[in-house]
Amino acid sequence: MTTVQVVKDILDANERIARENRRLFDEKNIYVFNLMSSPGAGKTTLVERTIEALRDRFRMAVIEGDIQDTCDADRVARHGIPVVQINTGGACHIDGNMVRDALPALDLDNVDLLICENVGNLVCPAEFRIGENVKIMLLSTPEGSDKPAKYPLMFQESAALILNKIDLLPYVDFDMAKARKDALTLNPKLEIFPVSCKTGEGFDAWARWIERQVEEFRKS
Amino acid sequence: MTTVQVVKDILDANERIARENRRLFDEKNIYVFNLMSSPGAGKTTLVERTIEALRDRFRMAVIEGDIQDTCDADRVARHGIPVVQINTGGACHIDGNMVRDALPALDLDNVDLLICENVGNLVCPAEFRIGENVKIMLLSTPEGSDKPAKYPLMFQESAALILNKIDLLPYVDFDMAKARKDALTLNPKLEIFPVSCKTGEGFDAWARWIERQVEEFRKS
Repeated sequence: MTTVQVVKDILDANERIARENRRLFDEKNIYVFNLMSSPGAGKTTLVERTIEALRDRFRMAVIEGDIQDTCDADRVARHGIPVVQINTGGACHIDGNMVRDALPALDLDNVDLLICENVGNLVCPAEFRIGENVKIMLLSTPEGSDKPAKYPLMFQESAALILNKIDLLPYVDFDMAKARKDALTLNPKLEIFPVSCKTGEGFDAWARWIERQVEEFRKS
Repeated sequence: MTTVQVVKDILDANERIARENRRLFDEKNIYVFNLMSSPGAGKTTLVERTIEALRDRFRMAVIEGDIQDTCDADRVARHGIPVVQINTGGACHIDGNMVRDALPALDLDNVDLLICENVGNLVCPAEFRIGENVKIMLLSTPEGSDKPAKYPLMFQESAALILNKIDLLPYVDFDMAKARKDALTLNPKLEIFPVSCKTGEGFDAWARWIERQVEEFRKS
């Protein structure tokens, strides 16, 4: 049972640090979302479009989580938004501690909305809180509509599901009704947004929703 | 430094069990490949096509690794091949111990080629040996050609890379030359097979290659 105990200790320690991060974000009135998906589902493109859609409404910053490399952070930086790269050095998710270590690089008194892009992985990121208000996940249509059944935790933990790459629907076997139904069975409160981050189709509904979440948080 | 020590202990214990599995496979003259990719890159479709391509050449069996659910194992079972499901119950990869526990369900005296389909994850499966002869990975074109730079370990550990979903090349931004170049920089010995597991395009080159690997192993 040693392994289980160790895993539990790690999760407990992470939970404590995540709560401390959350307390700091509350003090600074910063709304935070933790963006998760498989590799290549379109997280960075969603971040880029979200920046462009909301840059006149909120002061934004981005934390990029990757095993190594800075190519996503470089893409975000081109939008003129503060961005910090976390390189996990092999770890398959970001955790509370990594986010805490990244915060001194940001001017938190001038941030309304902090976007944390997790490592591409449909499993472990869902287990580690980082101090976020909500978890948001993407599922892209080429991945297939069987994913809720096979990777349930992330669907259960997320507040919103962005069904990305709907521009590819004519060319892939993706059963939209089944994906919706299975995701909502796992999480009846899940908000679902069919979107193409490439063409922009459906993007406005997501942008308006997240805008409303940030506004409501900042008024509360 | 406690965490590092624990991780090292787990990896050491796994290495020992993987070696024991390997010894058993050698005794039984069974070639084993460990199939890895992101969720939805096409592992199960590759397994199904490989069964159909080689079923007259070799006696095959399949171990399916999933967090939960048996939908992939059900697909494989329709081909009339022995299949065992490992449900990891949350873990993001299969390891030597899980494979060892699955073996009593197979008649190893009547298996030439054992295919182990790992959990969909581009990170952790590459760290855990299971007793395989080789690791094989898929990367699908919608995931993007930046993946070697961002998830290097799996490219370094694999003997072959199947670049799947080439039927989608006209509709996605995938730089085939860059993906090849970056993958070969990480691993100059990597065999690369551009394939559509959906249409069958390019599949024969993969089938002939793996057939040759199994033959050479069984003669040695």
